[in-house]
Amino acid sequence: MTHKILVMPGDGIGPEIVTEATRLLNALRERFGLDAELEKAPIGGAGYDAAGEPLPEQTLKLAREADGLLLGAVGGPRYDELPWEKRPERGLLAIRAQLELFSNLRPAILYPQLASASALKPEIVGGLDIMILRELTGGAYFGKPRGIDTREDGVRQGYNTIIYSEPEIERIARSGFDIAMKRDRRLCSVDKANVLEVSQLWREVVERVAKDYPDVALSHMYVDNAAMQLVRAPKQFDVIVTENMFGDILSDAAAMLTGSIGMLPSASLDAHGKGLYEPIHGSAPDIAGQGLANPLATLLSVAMMLRYSLNEEAQAARVEAAVGRVLDDGLRTPDIWTQGCDKVDTQTMGQAVVAAL
Amino acid sequence: MTHKILVMPGDGIGPEIVTEATRLLNALRERFGLDAELEKAPIGGAGYDAAGEPLPEQTLKLAREADGLLLGAVGGPRYDELPWEKRPERGLLAIRAQLELFSNLRPAILYPQLASASALKPEIVGGLDIMILRELTGGAYFGKPRGIDTREDGVRQGYNTIIYSEPEIERIARSGFDIAMKRDRRLCSVDKANVLEVSQLWREVVERVAKDYPDVALSHMYVDNAAMQLVRAPKQFDVIVTENMFGDILSDAAAMLTGSIGMLPSASLDAHGKGLYEPIHGSAPDIAGQGLANPLATLLSVAMMLRYSLNEEAQAARVEAAVGRVLDDGLRTPDIWTQGCDKVDTQTMGQAVVAAL
Ligand SMILES: CC(C)[C@H](C(=O)O)[C@@H](O)C(=O)O
Ligand SMILES: CC(C)[C@H](C(=O)O)[C@@H](O)C(=O)O
Repeated sequence: MTHKILVMPGDGIGPEIVTEATRLLNALRERFGLDAELEKAPIGGAGYDAAGEPLPEQTLKLAREADGLLLGAVGGPRYDELPWEKRPERGLLAIRAQLELFSNLRPAILYPQLASASALKPEIVGGLDIMILRELTGGAYFGKPRGIDTREDGVRQGYNTIIYSEPEIERIARSGFDIAMKRDRRLCSVDKANVLEVSQLWREVVERVAKDYPDVALSHMYVDNAAMQLVRAPKQFDVIVTENMFGDILSDAAAMLTGSIGMLPSASLDAHGKGLYEPIHGSAPDIAGQGLANPLATLLSVAMMLRYSLNEEAQAARVEAAVGRVLDDGLRTPDIWTQGCDKVDTQTMGQAVVAAL
Repeated sequence: MTHKILVMPGDGIGPEIVTEATRLLNALRERFGLDAELEKAPIGGAGYDAAGEPLPEQTLKLAREADGLLLGAVGGPRYDELPWEKRPERGLLAIRAQLELFSNLRPAILYPQLASASALKPEIVGGLDIMILRELTGGAYFGKPRGIDTREDGVRQGYNTIIYSEPEIERIARSGFDIAMKRDRRLCSVDKANVLEVSQLWREVVERVAKDYPDVALSHMYVDNAAMQLVRAPKQFDVIVTENMFGDILSDAAAMLTGSIGMLPSASLDAHGKGLYEPIHGSAPDIAGQGLANPLATLLSVAMMLRYSLNEEAQAARVEAAVGRVLDDGLRTPDIWTQGCDKVDTQTMGQAVVAAL
């Protein structure tokens, strides 16, 4: 069966890094028998430029038909003055919601070749390999009521609602336990149950789901403590599962522990394994179009897509091995460059990975 | 005028560390002419034990009459099974709300004597001195509606409301600018305005208040990026101002950057400079009663009280100098001990600071 892949370059450095991902996918098709067809569609600011919407109808239609989606990044100063509903980020939030991509996997892995890039001491962070699982379609991101209005006494107020239903918590908890089963079988659920009722329900449901996974060691941690522990001793974690906003904050902190967010991929999955894959880093408009961007997070996102959505484990492993090889060979884009290595541009890095396949 | 100080030891290591603070205050009275009278009252689990409430009536009454409040810490496993409203944390949240302590100052300072305790590399964190200003009486902590209930379709849901009014944002923004004026005049307001309407109002009000402080350089940062930047390059910040929940998470991460949260004090102020002072660390029930706790964060909280609420700058400076001297002398409680230093217990440390006054 032919895999349908939709690539959405987006904004900023998005097009450059997605070009390298396309090069990689084409090489897998031509040289290693990957049965896939690629389509391309605009999203974010590019969607607005093309069709007046950050998530054009046609893009959403193609996204629904695809088995796997690859996104570059969205956003940039050119779109800062647009009204709220037209902003690039709304396209990203809309596609997550429309496709029910509730399960967001954000690995934080320190590549041994890049250990010195971390702000943390080697003994604290060396060998780091944790998985943050972030709920992606609930909580304050989508909760209602929301808005800015004027109270009866004439005072303006702004508000959002952090809300989770039992089924929403249950399905992300199951994802968390399933992932932990394939790793070191330790799951840490992060909440703020000492303050928030929504966290109390979260904890209750996670506890109940845990009964179906007797082999996984479950722990709970308050979000403020989790932020501390990630800095103090990040290797204590195996899998962390948490709600949308906490996951946004903690996964970025965890990614930065490695010192090389240009290396980190992510996956956002629905209940059937269909997913959107994107690098963790943003659209970096300041360096767009200059060949400075690191394409490796995007190439590793392709590997995640091959593994999680297309069931092509061998192809995924092939990509990851090739990335390892170019790092061993000392090739580095500027963001991960250190003395003694070869500084290369986006395209050279992409071509090197293809050559190393 | 005699300063009225209320000390509230609380739970876990709270009594031990507050004992050292009391020793210090008595020394300032007897030897350095501090005109103060001390009262003592239970809060948290101790409040529940004494009067069936985490914030007993009598404690609140004394707190209202006091000029400055010193808290040890609250919470412990003995109280974990209590109903929500009786839990130790509720006492802390109630006193913040009742006294309108909306302005929470959380410095993250790396003491040069303790630089090696940080998980971060010395060049990243050496000389760190940032101030996180957290709004403390609004947002999801106190917003309504909140609760757990069953929807019409029979599904249970939990929810909380992140809510801020213009005056609430304005007063914390003013505190932020005022603090920045006394420091390096750089204020970074942290929000999630690309997703939350409440953050959009936050940003709008902060921008407006900025007009009154032309000498302060204001910037805005999304909370996920702030979490990354704190790990990557924390010294880029001078003062950070943010809402309650984001401040809870970021201030703990920032504190942990120093590697010695046993050293960090905090202040929670009302509109008139009255305040509650407490160490940033928790009640650490696992080491309670063993003389292992570090009293320095509490002694430095006394210094903050002398400075911010009692207008006794000279006394504050005296305390801080004494703490610096015992660190120079190599005295260390177990949490900050390293090879070559003198390992001392809680009381020895407290006595040493008094001797060094
Ligand atoms: C761009 C923004 C809306 C988004 C989010 O907050 O989810 C981003 O920070 C992310 O983490 O993917
Ligand atoms: C104990 C808890 C309610 C409290 C908070 O979340 O505010 C604590 O974490 C703090 O930061 O003072």
